Amino acid sequence: MAYYIDTMTVHVQQLKVRIHQVHPLQTPLDATKCHCVRAHLTQNTPGSSSARRPLHGQVRSPAGEVPQPHIPPHGGARRPRAAPATWVRLPGAAPVPVQGILERLDAGEIVIGDGGFVFALEKRGYVKAGPWTPEATVEHPEAVRQLHREFLRAGSNVLQTFTFYASEDKLENRGNYVAEKITCQKVNEAACDIAREVASEGDAVVAGGVSQTPSYLSCKDKAEVKAVFRKQLDIFMKKNVDFLIAEYFEHVEEAVWAVEVLKESGKPVAATMCIGPEGDMHGVPPGQCAVQLVKAGASIVGVNCHFDPDTVLETVKLMKEGLQAAKLKAHLMSQPLAFHTPDCGKQGFIDLPEFPFGLEPRIITRWDVQKYARKAYDLGIRYIGGCCGFEPYHIRAIAEELAPERGFLPEASEKHGSWGNSLSMHTKPWVRARARKEYWENLKPASGRPYCPSMSKPDGWGVTKGARELMQQKEATTEQQLKELFQKQKF
Amino acid sequence: MAYYIDTMTVHVQQLKVRIHQVHPLQTPLDATKCHCVRAHLTQNTPGSSSARRPLHGQVRSPAGEVPQPHIPPHGGARRPRAAPATWVRLPGAAPVPVQGILERLDAGEIVIGDGGFVFALEKRGYVKAGPWTPEATVEHPEAVRQLHREFLRAGSNVLQTFTFYASEDKLENRGNYVAEKITCQKVNEAACDIAREVASEGDAVVAGGVSQTPSYLSCKDKAEVKAVFRKQLDIFMKKNVDFLIAEYFEHVEEAVWAVEVLKESGKPVAATMCIGPEGDMHGVPPGQCAVQLVKAGASIVGVNCHFDPDTVLETVKLMKEGLQAAKLKAHLMSQPLAFHTPDCGKQGFIDLPEFPFGLEPRIITRWDVQKYARKAYDLGIRYIGGCCGFEPYHIRAIAEELAPERGFLPEASEKHGSWGNSLSMHTKPWVRARARKEYWENLKPASGRPYCPSMSKPDGWGVTKGARELMQQKEATTEQQLKELFQKQKF
Amino acid sequence: MAYYIDTMTVHVQQLKVRIHQVHPLQTPLDATKCHCVRAHLTQNTPGSSSARRPLHGQVRSPAGEVPQPHIPPHGGARRPRAAPATWVRLPGAAPVPVQGILERLDAGEIVIGDGGFVFALEKRGYVKAGPWTPEATVEHPEAVRQLHREFLRAGSNVLQTFTFYASEDKLENRGNYVAEKITCQKVNEAACDIAREVASEGDAVVAGGVSQTPSYLSCKDKAEVKAVFRKQLDIFMKKNVDFLIAEYFEHVEEAVWAVEVLKESGKPVAATMCIGPEGDMHGVPPGQCAVQLVKAGASIVGVNCHFDPDTVLETVKLMKEGLQAAKLKAHLMSQPLAFHTPDCGKQGFIDLPEFPFGLEPRIITRWDVQKYARKAYDLGIRYIGGCCGFEPYHIRAIAEELAPERGFLPEASEKHGSWGNSLSMHTKPWVRARARKEYWENLKPASGRPYCPSMSKPDGWGVTKGARELMQQKEATTEQQLKELFQKQKF
Amino acid sequence: MAYYIDTMTVHVQQLKVRIHQVHPLQTPLDATKCHCVRAHLTQNTPGSSSARRPLHGQVRSPAGEVPQPHIPPHGGARRPRAAPATWVRLPGAAPVPVQGILERLDAGEIVIGDGGFVFALEKRGYVKAGPWTPEATVEHPEAVRQLHREFLRAGSNVLQTFTFYASEDKLENRGNYVAEKITCQKVNEAACDIAREVASEGDAVVAGGVSQTPSYLSCKDKAEVKAVFRKQLDIFMKKNVDFLIAEYFEHVEEAVWAVEVLKESGKPVAATMCIGPEGDMHGVPPGQCAVQLVKAGASIVGVNCHFDPDTVLETVKLMKEGLQAAKLKAHLMSQPLAFHTPDCGKQGFIDLPEFPFGLEPRIITRWDVQKYARKAYDLGIRYIGGCCGFEPYHIRAIAEELAPERGFLPEASEKHGSWGNSLSMHTKPWVRARARKEYWENLKPASGRPYCPSMSKPDGWGVTKGARELMQQKEATTEQQLKELFQKQKF
Repeated sequence: MAYYIDTMTVHVQQLKVRIHQVHPLQTPLDATKCHCVRAHLTQNTPGSSSARRPLHGQVRSPAGEVPQPHIPPHGGARRPRAAPATWVRLPGAAPVPVQGILERLDAGEIVIGDGGFVFALEKRGYVKAGPWTPEATVEHPEAVRQLHREFLRAGSNVLQTFTFYASEDKLENRGNYVAEKITCQKVNEAACDIAREVASEGDAVVAGGVSQTPSYLSCKDKAEVKAVFRKQLDIFMKKNVDFLIAEYFEHVEEAVWAVEVLKESGKPVAATMCIGPEGDMHGVPPGQCAVQLVKAGASIVGVNCHFDPDTVLETVKLMKEGLQAAKLKAHLMSQPLAFHTPDCGKQGFIDLPEFPFGLEPRIITRWDVQKYARKAYDLGIRYIGGCCGFEPYHIRAIAEELAPERGFLPEASEKHGSWGNSLSMHTKPWVRARARKEYWENLKPASGRPYCPSMSKPDGWGVTKGARELMQQKEATTEQQLKELFQKQKF
Repeated sequence: MAYYIDTMTVHVQQLKVRIHQVHPLQTPLDATKCHCVRAHLTQNTPGSSSARRPLHGQVRSPAGEVPQPHIPPHGGARRPRAAPATWVRLPGAAPVPVQGILERLDAGEIVIGDGGFVFALEKRGYVKAGPWTPEATVEHPEAVRQLHREFLRAGSNVLQTFTFYASEDKLENRGNYVAEKITCQKVNEAACDIAREVASEGDAVVAGGVSQTPSYLSCKDKAEVKAVFRKQLDIFMKKNVDFLIAEYFEHVEEAVWAVEVLKESGKPVAATMCIGPEGDMHGVPPGQCAVQLVKAGASIVGVNCHFDPDTVLETVKLMKEGLQAAKLKAHLMSQPLAFHTPDCGKQGFIDLPEFPFGLEPRIITRWDVQKYARKAYDLGIRYIGGCCGFEPYHIRAIAEELAPERGFLPEASEKHGSWGNSLSMHTKPWVRARARKEYWENLKPASGRPYCPSMSKPDGWGVTKGARELMQQKEATTEQQLKELFQKQKF
Repeated sequence: MAYYIDTMTVHVQQLKVRIHQVHPLQTPLDATKCHCVRAHLTQNTPGSSSARRPLHGQVRSPAGEVPQPHIPPHGGARRPRAAPATWVRLPGAAPVPVQGILERLDAGEIVIGDGGFVFALEKRGYVKAGPWTPEATVEHPEAVRQLHREFLRAGSNVLQTFTFYASEDKLENRGNYVAEKITCQKVNEAACDIAREVASEGDAVVAGGVSQTPSYLSCKDKAEVKAVFRKQLDIFMKKNVDFLIAEYFEHVEEAVWAVEVLKESGKPVAATMCIGPEGDMHGVPPGQCAVQLVKAGASIVGVNCHFDPDTVLETVKLMKEGLQAAKLKAHLMSQPLAFHTPDCGKQGFIDLPEFPFGLEPRIITRWDVQKYARKAYDLGIRYIGGCCGFEPYHIRAIAEELAPERGFLPEASEKHGSWGNSLSMHTKPWVRARARKEYWENLKPASGRPYCPSMSKPDGWGVTKGARELMQQKEATTEQQLKELFQKQKF
Repeated sequence: MAYYIDTMTVHVQQLKVRIHQVHPLQTPLDATKCHCVRAHLTQNTPGSSSARRPLHGQVRSPAGEVPQPHIPPHGGARRPRAAPATWVRLPGAAPVPVQGILERLDAGEIVIGDGGFVFALEKRGYVKAGPWTPEATVEHPEAVRQLHREFLRAGSNVLQTFTFYASEDKLENRGNYVAEKITCQKVNEAACDIAREVASEGDAVVAGGVSQTPSYLSCKDKAEVKAVFRKQLDIFMKKNVDFLIAEYFEHVEEAVWAVEVLKESGKPVAATMCIGPEGDMHGVPPGQCAVQLVKAGASIVGVNCHFDPDTVLETVKLMKEGLQAAKLKAHLMSQPLAFHTPDCGKQGFIDLPEFPFGLEPRIITRWDVQKYARKAYDLGIRYIGGCCGFEPYHIRAIAEELAPERGFLPEASEKHGSWGNSLSMHTKPWVRARARKEYWENLKPASGRPYCPSMSKPDGWGVTKGARELMQQKEATTEQQLKELFQKQKF
């Protein structure tokens, strides 16, 4: 027997708390998954979990069955840790330590990542497409904080500092004078502070993140590029983030340099590349990329950005096979786009004509995300998140799909019935008729755009590291430079 | 000569302020529009506008031309008012009164509405699809406040209280026990407080909003339905909103009742129906709906929700013609969906199989919005906003499209170059080649979904007011009721 | 009980003939239709139909049921006529008179038209797109004869002489010197001879056809235009066609002139316009067009060409309503395109960017035709055929869909199982699994063209009768004229 | 300077003949191609080609330039042969020998194949989908003859006997009792006679064709399968066809057996498989398939059917590379589908849900064919034809695209202007504006089907040789067998 979980309110030890109800699942899960659910339920019965679980209770079963023990939102099972870095304070309970990323993954837990900051904040009005830099941490901290909170509420166990493209060389590229106006240090520090503040409100750890640099693309040498990463790392160490992520690398060579720098800190390091099955921009296949990253010190490897969930999973699978062939061990991680990109070339969605201001028709639905989360889980990935395009509701969909395995739903599910079941409250009867899994699982959503095609031909200029047009340039692109580019591009 | 405007920083009277630059437009506007720009520019030259404008300055022209006077963000031209209800305090300037909605419209100004709260907050995790009720004003005020701020920053001149479906009968429909847990009064009061708080940060007025009720659909009589509206109005009056909106009505009869109640307040009343060119659910054509609403006391009439921009504009055009034929005067207003719905039937997007969890491929782009804003303006509509699906960046697109007419850009445009020009800062040269109007104007964005169609057949159960299945029901929909609906629906 | 019919061979009076078997239909027909079948079956039992039917017999029922009387291919029930113009000689039987078009329609019979000659012969290599003239009747009579035979075999009861655009003024338009090389008279005479030859091989009548003229578009007067039609009519009379069709008229004024001329002959006249629901090029609505045509002498009116089946039926419905309102009686006729054209404007498929060399993805399937035939029948249309794009298999689909009503299948059905049932002979099991109505009825066929849209914007130059660019011109279009057109057209 | 060619009439030695005009091409060809044209033109100047060419003449140049020598339809330059098997009699000239297939290919000539008989004749009413057998050669020889003529006229240099699936075992499979009613021998003999009759009317050779057998799929042994092929070969030898084709093989093992049998005849043998880049049904890659076929005796190898032009060319490229790696020489040949099949799996279009009665939206345009012909030529393929779906106008498009290389146009081009130029004769000015290459080359044709997707998921039952469901079965598929299949298939 398998279950799905919905919210309810019960009284536990004089405390009125909102927790989740367990119903039999309409679609039976397979044996492994059922086992998983049971394990969680078992190790959390009132008597068995000592005082570690802040909330639990007897759940009223829907049809008079034997009551099932229940795990509320906010937590998976945890063991005490020697030196917990942070603590989670859940309402009505003593603080418990938040577990580190590796403890969780080593214990077989599912870790849910967060979504895409630059795309979400661009739409909210705080990030400029083009430079994509995160000075909003200083200019509009309330907006960044709110997005972190939404991801936390949606189920994220990791809050990445909003430091994407916050390396000094990137902050002052092509007429974007952020470093000059605000300083690289302030942007990074503010990002750490905000992430920590929100993480402390729930069950999440903070990851300091670095990404690829204009310096590398401009052929600076290894020492110079490493110095750029080290500048950000210093701030992460000062702010005591929980672990580190090197993400969004198109060249494994640069990613390895980043991992080597981050590894100097002694903290766990995760590394993801924005590549597809064809490998990095220099042609290194995914399997070899993974091997190099693990050898450089990464404990978690995978893929982020540039491709849709299916392509990212295909690529992570190649990484997994590469590691197995090399007899190396690492946790796997996936943070794909929330856009359908079956028509991408090697360099991903950047090349699609719709990037970045016409991607709307490609946005994936929550049901697409549920399929992704299931497939990722089945592939053995345990760090499952998203990248550009992933909004809070997409992250929530990961948490809902894997609720049977994890034993609990995210807080945001109080406003979302699994597989559309909140539609049973809709006024119109034909919408109430959509309150079921079969409906949404089988829907082929129309675009409403009969004059548009379903696929595009990506631009393929075939330039990479070292190409003149990719060189860093502090000054704004000139009219003349633009004119040349306009002529080069047919559309 | 016509212009487009981009942000820049200049020094005005010892004050370093961020204002906007005026460039010649690549695509020439027609004479009327040019005239418009000039008019704005003229009435705001340093000497000519007395002390009413908080910010102004000489703008450095891009190519050594004669400097153009400039209107900064945050304001249009305003005349003093007898008894200003509220004041706007812009940085480095004395407060100026915020003008009322009718003063603005009567003066020929463009008023930009806000976007869709229930859809945006559902994705952020604070609203439940199905009941769609706004208890987040009490449960998560910070989330509601943040969204208001984003719309204000994007250019909204009206902040609607988040009181959609906040009538008492709706708050406790079909198992949604909000009224019981929180009370209708608290939800409405909190909504007013948040909207006022944010409106006072910029150049916006607050509108208290009511919408269609389960009571009407359940055939309650006129007095009963009016009592429901009056309960919300009492709170709006207590909180002193600036004007009132009756929106999202499928039946003109109920809309008229709403307008009659709201008109009792003495405040200006706007009224929008969620209908298409075929008219209301009882077959009353748009032109007649408009006539009835204006006769009932509405000063502004139009259409919101249920249809895409093209269909909404077609419907408002019919309203306009109806009013002209009846020799009635009213301002026009449009707040369409941010979804393409060419395949909708009479009842709009509710019927589409994708509603509400598979609408992603239909989301309109910012360029679609610019076309909508231009078309709305050309049709004579001056209150231009959005409804479900409209995110802050969609509102920004209205403000950017109409910047030549208004003479200024919204604050959020500091993070957005008009027609994609911020892409000139992108690392990849082929993306920099997209930094121009021609590119985005002509793009036919692909869906990335080759296995999906471009249009859907709407569900058409043909039930409306009075149908048993539309009756209000406090208790949750039962399993048996759902089963019957599931069988009724083919998919 | 309803039936479907498949081919079989039986022995009737020492003669081995191929006739058709009657099986119970899987999908029950409604009572009216069943009645229809029975009526047909009854009036054709061996004893009841005197000696008029050349072929009949007892059919071996598939599962030992009571044998059903049977109507073979080639015939419906017929009554003797006073002066039969032509006779049909079926194998092994004495000749019987072929009934006239009005006798058939008056008796409630379904008359099946033929398909599109210019498009089919263009693909076969005998007609030039652009002029679209029918000189193939002289140049390649065997090709024209073969196409007539295929339509006859597919079930056509009318063979139209291939005289489309065979008016003298059209035969020498814009550099097409047919009239000069071959003469208008020869083209028309040959067309009559071929049609008569093939018609005499089966159960079909010959219709002489005229269509709109360059003279009218060039503003020649009524007498001149009528003289053009009269030239063709003289040949039709000399060759003694069975009835006359005025087809493919964009302006009802010209169509009326044509009907008036044809009516001089004393033969029955049918008239179809190539218009949609918006009416003719001068804005005359379909209902009024129908009324004018009937008043001018047409016994059969309807629509041909320019639009897909759905649009044509919608237009014929408006004609029907116009006639009813005017208390006029006429038979209805529809000969639509075999292309999907939901995106057409007022002037039909000519305006679509795909016309005429990129229409392939719009070609309708045989199943689309079956739906069309059923809908046409239900609307009361009894002369049901096709126009451009209709290949023999499309006509066969009309005959198969209406076989229950008519009581027999066309000869070509010996090579086609109804609703795909011949696939039960396919080698691959998954293709055999497609041998059923449910499969084909529900299929949403993919285009295999993910880079193409599903709809197009029609060219709309808005020119009609009298416009300079529509004037007849004997000489070929010059390079200069082309250059001007190329510049005028954006694509 | 490069040229395109259009038809005109000139007087040559008292003889009025229709030949073709040479115009400068708007789009310049590259040097190689120009060279090619020139070569042809040179070797055919009046004085230089002795008496072998029946037609030639001075062509009036369009703008007073120096007259160009001209090559008429029907022929390329030919050298005398030792023992010519057949002769071509062109009007007004002494017979010249038709060259053999290998002489042509060895001399570097382009040989144009024919199109798809079973699909074309199914639509015309003479072939039954499911069995797909060619008994029409006996039942309706005039229909088969007409199709041969159309292909010849369109430019085909090879007429394949219509003997596809005419092996004895196939003629009586699954309730198709052709062999019993007509005999295998008669079907094959009639096919040879018709093909020879039509070939003698033009410049074409006759190829006897065999294809894969039910015997092989039913696991009969090598000797038994070879005996099936030998039966057809005996007839081909008796009727003295010019060469032999083994085509439509899914398993290279069976194809090799067929080639071995055909090779016994001493005549040239061509062999094509219906495979894609993934190789044959047993997983043998295309390169290896080609090597095995050439070693077995094939002089020409390639791919036919099952996939669209792009996929077929990709597969032939793999064959070419396989042969090069094995240092084997053979001519290359391609005869793809006229359907777009980007979504096919390993087994090709049979698996697509649209096969065979819903393929219309996938039909390729003449412009798609021109791109295919050019790509095939550039890849080094010199035997270029089509398979299912290829209608005469598709073959004409091959001949028109390669006219610059060949120096002449096919006869059917008298009714077709290259790249749409006959539209300059169209009545409507906006259609005349389409009389140019740029227009048609860039058109993305819409499907007119907004409710349909652009790609399909192929059925993939994964059964092949030896599977119970593929076994030959003389009796018709039973209702019970069908029911099982229906349940197995989801749609």
